[in-house]
Amino acid sequence: MTEYMDVHRGMKGITNEELREAHRADQAIEGEEGVRFKHAWADPESGTVYCLSEGPSAEAVQRVHSRTGHPADEIHPVRWTV
Amino acid sequence: MTEYMDVHRGMKGITNEELREAHRADQAIEGEEGVRFKHAWADPESGTVYCLSEGPSAEAVQRVHSRTGHPADEIHPVRWTV
Repeated sequence: MTEYMDVHRGMKGITNEELREAHRADQAIEGEEGVRFKHAWADPESGTVYCLSEGPSAEAVQRVHSRTGHPADEIHPVRWTV
Repeated sequence: MTEYMDVHRGMKGITNEELREAHRADQAIEGEEGVRFKHAWADPESGTVYCLSEGPSAEAVQRVHSRTGHPADEIHPVRWTV
């Protein structure tokens, strides 16, 4: 299992409820891809959302995000963390 | 206090020890700016490092990173988190 940080752009104005709903939608199907979404951080002003997950591949993370309607713009495997 | 997610690019090949050393350097002076660095995630392949911090302003976060020799390319205030 690898940790991934992914980035969504163009989410200007995202509300707290929309972030929660998107996270809930991802979590509802993440098990089918062996992914676990851990945290998300949103900046509605610039429209940037960061998600931290754990999964078998970046493709699996992207499949979850795509199926729930918000594919990521970048997905980076986390090799080091502190 | 606000949470900030910042992004450093161009860190290709960063090692675990280099990440730890950069984080230690930030933490050594963060108190002077009222900032607290909480976590960092590095992807040496794309050269991307994400740092999560808490502080009084994005400028304060950037001052710490600049003084330790690695200014951030983007700093986003986190308004919503899940």
